[in-house]
Amino acid sequence: MSIKTNTYHLHLESHHDRPVLFHVTQADWESAAKRHRALAKKLRVTAGWDNQIIHEALKTADFMITNTVPPRERFREVAPRMKWIQTTAAGVDALMPMDWLPTDVSLTNNTGAHGPKAEESCLMGLLMLQSRLPEILKNQQNHVWDCICTVPIAGKCVVVVGFGDLGQGAGRAAKKLGMTVIAVTRSGTPHRLADRVVKASRIDSVLPKADFVIVTSPLTAETRNLISRDSISLLKRGAGFINIGRAPIVDYAALREKLDSGHLGGAVLDVFEKEPLAKDSPWWSTRNTVVLPHISCDDPRYVARLFDSWFENFERFLAGKKLRNIVDRRLGY
Amino acid sequence: MSIKTNTYHLHLESHHDRPVLFHVTQADWESAAKRHRALAKKLRVTAGWDNQIIHEALKTADFMITNTVPPRERFREVAPRMKWIQTTAAGVDALMPMDWLPTDVSLTNNTGAHGPKAEESCLMGLLMLQSRLPEILKNQQNHVWDCICTVPIAGKCVVVVGFGDLGQGAGRAAKKLGMTVIAVTRSGTPHRLADRVVKASRIDSVLPKADFVIVTSPLTAETRNLISRDSISLLKRGAGFINIGRAPIVDYAALREKLDSGHLGGAVLDVFEKEPLAKDSPWWSTRNTVVLPHISCDDPRYVARLFDSWFENFERFLAGKKLRNIVDRRLGY
Repeated sequence: MSIKTNTYHLHLESHHDRPVLFHVTQADWESAAKRHRALAKKLRVTAGWDNQIIHEALKTADFMITNTVPPRERFREVAPRMKWIQTTAAGVDALMPMDWLPTDVSLTNNTGAHGPKAEESCLMGLLMLQSRLPEILKNQQNHVWDCICTVPIAGKCVVVVGFGDLGQGAGRAAKKLGMTVIAVTRSGTPHRLADRVVKASRIDSVLPKADFVIVTSPLTAETRNLISRDSISLLKRGAGFINIGRAPIVDYAALREKLDSGHLGGAVLDVFEKEPLAKDSPWWSTRNTVVLPHISCDDPRYVARLFDSWFENFERFLAGKKLRNIVDRRLGY
Repeated sequence: MSIKTNTYHLHLESHHDRPVLFHVTQADWESAAKRHRALAKKLRVTAGWDNQIIHEALKTADFMITNTVPPRERFREVAPRMKWIQTTAAGVDALMPMDWLPTDVSLTNNTGAHGPKAEESCLMGLLMLQSRLPEILKNQQNHVWDCICTVPIAGKCVVVVGFGDLGQGAGRAAKKLGMTVIAVTRSGTPHRLADRVVKASRIDSVLPKADFVIVTSPLTAETRNLISRDSISLLKRGAGFINIGRAPIVDYAALREKLDSGHLGGAVLDVFEKEPLAKDSPWWSTRNTVVLPHISCDDPRYVARLFDSWFENFERFLAGKKLRNIVDRRLGY
C-alpha cells in the first residue's frame, strides 16, 4: 500500500491594503487544519501577500481563497488547474463583470457569515435613530442636558432593501422590535420575515411609507444607484437611514443634503464610496449621522469560520456534490 | 330626579423644576377626561404649580396626582379629606421615610409604565457597549477610521440589579439577544426571564461573572450604595455598565475611576446624583461613557397613560376594590 500524497494545491492570497479581518494567513490555515486534520492532509498550501507569488502559485493551484481580485487577463493560461475560487467577502462586485472567469471554475462567496452580526447592528442602529441618539451625543459633547424623549419603536415601518443574509438579519431585528417590515428584492417573492415584499422596480412606491430604510443589497448592475436622488426625495420628514450594504446603491450626495438640511432624522452608515473614509470627508460631521468603519456585519472570528465552511465545501467537492454559496455570475451574488 | 353633583375633588400638582414630561396640567386633564367622560363627571379638578395653591387645594382634596413631594408636616390637618396620592414617577425615594403619611391614605406610583421603553434602551445600551461604540464615536469626532470589530453579544452574561418593571424590561432585552441573565433581587425568588436569581445580599458573588451590569432598582435604604467601591472592584476588565435606576445605588466616584482607567469597557448612564448634570460635571467626558438625559424609560405619552391608569384605579376605588400599584411604605417601592 502506497502512502497517499497530497493531491490538491490550495493557494491563500491576501492583500495588506484590505482590513486585517480579511487576511487569510498561514497561521489561520494551521489553526483551521487542526480542526480538520483528515481533509487538511489532502492539501498542499501556499500563502502569498500582495500578489508577490501569485503567478508562481497559480501555475499549480487547484483552489484559491482570496481577499482580492485574481489576475484576470488570460486567466486559464495563468491558472491552468484552477477549479474553485473562494472569496473572503460576501460581496463580489469587485470581480464583475465575470467574463474573465472560465465557466468550469466555481466561484463561492462567504454569504451566511454576516447575518447574526448584521442583525445586532440593525437592532442598535434602528434604536439609536429612533431615540435621536446622534442629537443626544452632540449635546453630550457640548455639556448640554436636554431631555429628548421619544416613543418606543414598536409599530414603526422599516423598508429593507435586499433580503439575503444581511437583509434577513435586518428583518429579524425589526421583528424583535415589533416593527412592520417591507422588503425590496429582485424577485418580489414573499418571505416569512417580511409583512410585504415588493420588486426592486417598485421601490419608489414603498419609500414614502418608511420610518426607516435599511440598505443591505449587494452592489450589482441592477442595484447601482437604485436609491437615486429622486427616490431619496420620497422619504418622509424625520425618516432614519441605515446602509450596511454598499455605498453606490445610494445617491450619497443627495442623502447628505437631506441629512444636513434636517429633512431626514439621521443616518447610521457603515459603507462609503471610498474606504477608509478620507480625513476631509464631509461624512465625518454630517448632521445626525453616525459613521461606522465597515464593521456592522463582521465577526472577528470571520476567517476561522470561513475556513470551517471552506472545509465543509471541500468535502462536498471530494464527494462530487454541488458546492454551497456558489455565486451567480450573471446576477453578481 | 336630582342632577348628580361632583362628589370628589382631585388636585393636580406640578413643579416647574421637574422635567416637562412629568407635568400634569389642566390640558392633560381635559384631554384625559374626554376619554373617560362618565368617570370624569364624578370629579372636580384643580391644578396647581409650584405649591402656589397647595394649601388651599388640600383643604378639600380627596385625591392628588403629584410630580413632587406634598407638604409633609401635620399632613392629616393640612389635607383632612385626602384618601389617595398618585405619584407621576415610579421611584418614590423622595417621599421616604413615609412616617408623615397617614396609614389610611393610599399611595400609588406609576410602575409598569416604563417597561417597554426600558427594554429598548437596554437593547441599545448593551449593543453599543458590546460593539465599543463610544470608541468609534470618539474616532468619528477625530476623523479616524479604525475597524474596531467585535463578536456578537449572544452568550454573554448580564447581571440585572432589581427585577421589577425596568429590570424585567432589561431581562427581555437580554433574552432577545441570547444572553445569560442573572437577576439580583431583595427576595431571590426565581423568575422565568432570569437564568438565575440571587439575593441582593449576595450580589458580590455574581458581579465577577458579569460582562455587563444593568442597574434598574428603586432607591431605598437597602439599595443605597448597594454597588459600593468594593463591589465595583469585582467587575472584570472590559465589563460594560448601564444605570437606568438611580445614581446613589452605585458608588459613582469609584465607577468613574474604573472607566477613566480603562478597566471597565464603557458605560451608558441615564441617571445622576444631581440632574440636570452640571455643566462642569466630569461625567460629560468620562472615557467611553454615554450620558443620557434621564430618558431611557420614559415615553412622551407618559402623562396621558398615567391618567388612563389613574382612571382605571379610580373605577376600582369607586367599586371598593384594592388599588393597583400601591407602594409598600416600608420597602419604598
